[in-house]
Amino acid sequence: MPNPPDYSWSVQAQQPVDYQVSMVQGLLDPSNSSLARACGADGVRKVRCLVVVDDVVDELYGDRFRDYFGAWNIEAAWQPAPGDETAKTLEQAVAITEAMSAMGILRRTEKVIAIGGGVVMDVVGLAASLYRRGIPYVRIPTTLIGQVDAGVGVKTGVNHGHHKNRLGSYCAPTTTLIDTEFLRTVEPRHINNGMAEIIKMALVKDADLFELLEIAMPVVDAGMMADRNPLSIEIIARAIAGMLSELEPNLWESVLERSVDYGHTFSPSLELRADPPLLHGEAVGVDMAICVALAHNRGMLSKEDTDRALRLMCAAGLPVTDAVFTAELVSEALRDAVKHRDGMQRIPLTTGIGSVRFVNDLTDDEIERGLDFVSQWAAEHREETA
Amino acid sequence: MPNPPDYSWSVQAQQPVDYQVSMVQGLLDPSNSSLARACGADGVRKVRCLVVVDDVVDELYGDRFRDYFGAWNIEAAWQPAPGDETAKTLEQAVAITEAMSAMGILRRTEKVIAIGGGVVMDVVGLAASLYRRGIPYVRIPTTLIGQVDAGVGVKTGVNHGHHKNRLGSYCAPTTTLIDTEFLRTVEPRHINNGMAEIIKMALVKDADLFELLEIAMPVVDAGMMADRNPLSIEIIARAIAGMLSELEPNLWESVLERSVDYGHTFSPSLELRADPPLLHGEAVGVDMAICVALAHNRGMLSKEDTDRALRLMCAAGLPVTDAVFTAELVSEALRDAVKHRDGMQRIPLTTGIGSVRFVNDLTDDEIERGLDFVSQWAAEHREETA
Repeated sequence: MPNPPDYSWSVQAQQPVDYQVSMVQGLLDPSNSSLARACGADGVRKVRCLVVVDDVVDELYGDRFRDYFGAWNIEAAWQPAPGDETAKTLEQAVAITEAMSAMGILRRTEKVIAIGGGVVMDVVGLAASLYRRGIPYVRIPTTLIGQVDAGVGVKTGVNHGHHKNRLGSYCAPTTTLIDTEFLRTVEPRHINNGMAEIIKMALVKDADLFELLEIAMPVVDAGMMADRNPLSIEIIARAIAGMLSELEPNLWESVLERSVDYGHTFSPSLELRADPPLLHGEAVGVDMAICVALAHNRGMLSKEDTDRALRLMCAAGLPVTDAVFTAELVSEALRDAVKHRDGMQRIPLTTGIGSVRFVNDLTDDEIERGLDFVSQWAAEHREETA
Repeated sequence: MPNPPDYSWSVQAQQPVDYQVSMVQGLLDPSNSSLARACGADGVRKVRCLVVVDDVVDELYGDRFRDYFGAWNIEAAWQPAPGDETAKTLEQAVAITEAMSAMGILRRTEKVIAIGGGVVMDVVGLAASLYRRGIPYVRIPTTLIGQVDAGVGVKTGVNHGHHKNRLGSYCAPTTTLIDTEFLRTVEPRHINNGMAEIIKMALVKDADLFELLEIAMPVVDAGMMADRNPLSIEIIARAIAGMLSELEPNLWESVLERSVDYGHTFSPSLELRADPPLLHGEAVGVDMAICVALAHNRGMLSKEDTDRALRLMCAAGLPVTDAVFTAELVSEALRDAVKHRDGMQRIPLTTGIGSVRFVNDLTDDEIERGLDFVSQWAAEHREETA
């Protein structure tokens, strides 16, 4: 040991994270072992789990989940939870930890199963990461946005003080199981909601996916996305693969220039303030539209690609403008984004379809001109806008 | 890409953790750059930080901290916080995140500085880990238990639903700065509180430290621990070194058999229920006493070492019994510990001073006999017990 006054210890360690994201056909078919394995069940020995399920999903699929768990000798404690954005609160996360306590869940071997959309994914993930400093959980996203976005990463979070995801954690699930069959009962507006994140992935890194979306969009609906046709499977799989390839090398956001933040610079402030409320993907759509305009006005994006981008958003039923999305709100949103991005703007803008560059010098004047561009474009394309 | 239906992605990453625990002489002397460096200050460029300080420490040392920050051109937002166990709540952690929001703290470069005892360390750590999914913070523990225990690891936590640390996270500080000078104003009972964790480290892995404590205990008081004499420095440094050597290879508790859990099997249930309340270290003392008796009754610990262990706890002013620490409470505490330890007891018991073995087969009958042993020992050593 060194002599006083120089006692100093350096603590170094690496936390390994390893999880699986799988597209599964027939997740609720008792002959499919995917979910049972995720619960640690073998069908013989009884195991327990805590199921936290979106109450709408519970109504639609609760009995089939119960039958499945029964078939595999899984004793499931049942905790329905609201799935709308207003329920994305710390209070909800705490309520879920209390269900863990009431069940007396074991710290490592008994799993929490989160079933639902993005809100349930985020809130249950936070609860699981807080309870006894972290217990394992499984994600079963049932909405399109859950399947391509909230369900596949390691972020958890709740809104607080009118700020999106102000409190949260990084906490990987043990496994994410994606069955597109759940999409069959998703409302059209919520299909569009998920499509926003798919368009984002296409814009920032996958021009082929963009072309695929242009072809598919006229025939996209819940049934088409639920069917395991080559087109819907490729759209979803490419979106997930693109997302994971961006996340994996930067899982804890040590790099704050993230292309997946495209459309997420101004939208956090818009999303909680729009009246009538916007879904997450809708706010992302409005944000992407101005970003397309900003890139165009800087000469980074051709007129043709600008049109294609805005047209695809409209074809997906996404708004490109919003009454409260004023220059003032955009500037205010940018100030908060700058804090979130540690003092710099780091705004991803397209340099063509499928690629981005980060800018740090956006001006208020550009914001005004960007908003004007989108308004004018929308006025000229009234028949295309939602 | 593989063909449907077999799309599956494996996500693998490692989160690097690297932090420094340093004993610093003259931390508040403006000529000492340790704290300034921890804040990212160079004395020229203005930097900001958020100081969350135990309100008692604020009264005693607030002006000196302010002078120090002033000298280094550090603009410190000031957030006093209560430091007693009843303030170890999620509400307190949330209040601290709101101070972060109000200040508009940058996500990476501006630091949160936690100054105080174990409660402030744990609550601020949780707040820092939740805010925007984690922002950097610095620990300045000012109590003995803070300096050898709560301040040096990566755990954060709050009590919830009458359970100790039921909600929390693993979130390393960027740096922990320990100046024993703060101990000069710590009340005797709180010196004893910290001594419990030092005795624990001695019992589980450091027989030399145990001998040192036997020699030192008659002269231990706040002033002696604050003075940088070779004895106090060695006691504190050995306790920290022992703790870190146990934590570093198991920072996220992937191994649930932890020798540092010695004295922490039954005490979590006792601590929040004792009336009049016990400090954390006092509850640990009562827990260690029965563990010593359990080991003795199993023939794992000699009569002589059993006496030495109990005598040292008494010499440190720690209780070895408590009115509510009945066989019923001990059994109930064990049932919760088993959930925390994933279905097994994993109780560390001494196999001599400086070594432990984990047992999984403790019976109710043994608990009764263990409690009887301690009661009888206490009755026979009335002059030594606190």
